[in-house]
Amino acid sequence: MKLLQERIRQEGLILSDKVLKVDSFLNHQVDTGLALEIGREFARIFGHQPITKVLTIEASGIQFAMATAMVLNVPFIYAKKKKAVTLSENVYSVPVHSFTRQETYQVSVSQKYLGSSDKVLIVDDFLATGAALVGLVDIVKEAGAELVGVGSVIEKSFQEGRSLLENKGVQVHSLARIASMKPGEIHFIEDQGRVQHVK
Amino acid sequence: MKLLQERIRQEGLILSDKVLKVDSFLNHQVDTGLALEIGREFARIFGHQPITKVLTIEASGIQFAMATAMVLNVPFIYAKKKKAVTLSENVYSVPVHSFTRQETYQVSVSQKYLGSSDKVLIVDDFLATGAALVGLVDIVKEAGAELVGVGSVIEKSFQEGRSLLENKGVQVHSLARIASMKPGEIHFIEDQGRVQHVK
Repeated sequence: MKLLQERIRQEGLILSDKVLKVDSFLNHQVDTGLALEIGREFARIFGHQPITKVLTIEASGIQFAMATAMVLNVPFIYAKKKKAVTLSENVYSVPVHSFTRQETYQVSVSQKYLGSSDKVLIVDDFLATGAALVGLVDIVKEAGAELVGVGSVIEKSFQEGRSLLENKGVQVHSLARIASMKPGEIHFIEDQGRVQHVK
Repeated sequence: MKLLQERIRQEGLILSDKVLKVDSFLNHQVDTGLALEIGREFARIFGHQPITKVLTIEASGIQFAMATAMVLNVPFIYAKKKKAVTLSENVYSVPVHSFTRQETYQVSVSQKYLGSSDKVLIVDDFLATGAALVGLVDIVKEAGAELVGVGSVIEKSFQEGRSLLENKGVQVHSLARIASMKPGEIHFIEDQGRVQHVK
């Protein structure tokens, strides 16, 4: 998605070869026009399939799930993150390790809102280690629902998340795929798979 | 907002005289059409003033901030509930006590995204004790920005949140004001201030 790549080039802060801050327009302050375009793009990519629900995880996936679900005219669900405490009986729940925060938390979705008749599109802001998204995929399977695919806004293609998902047979689309980066320099993988050298 | 009151009557789960669950349509699974109507209503109520930013707090305020900011065509910011690794420097920050979780957390907004030229509308899903919303009001003041008002989706009017905000001179609008409730019974305060007995 060209518009998104442009914004990352213009406003993204590359702090190291692994850390990209996009909190001026994606995940702290949010450009609502761009978020809506992102929703339209996910709907364009996945919307030929009969999606019944969009699933994401709190907090930074919510604006993109909201935009995508609005365009698809379906509800969305955001999985809750809790520190491992006593689990309620009526939730699908998986442990997820956060490498950013160096802690393991429990991700849960109420069983009332996901079932075997659902066709689910998962969306999130980042695909990097894939830990959170693999957790959401496991929840969709536990619910007996059909997984349509995973849409991530930004993919750190140099990390293992995409292969973890693809090894589970999941269709993955990312709107900006970063091949590599370091302060002052970022390389995107183009949709066709070529690496685009810019910045 | 009649549409919202109807949904609360139909789908809200009143667990006690203080606990109302609305997670089938507002804050776990989200009815995107209703969330957009809520955004339109906040924009209608506050939009005659020149709002530059909508402010909320992660996670359950995000869908309503997104909807409101989309309608107003401005960015929104969601305050973070604890210092993340990538959000450490130059933040406005206040401690907030959560009565639900019985813990105190730090609420922060990057100083880059809020300043003295901003006119801010704060929105959130619930106004009850007011702790989180008072924290956001303090952040807006700390930033030297102008506070346009606070919009809450559901207000538990039998708790002290509204008076805490009004004592700070804040204009508060809630779309559904609950005068009292117990399992099987809920009473709303109508816009005119009358109590409406239904359910």
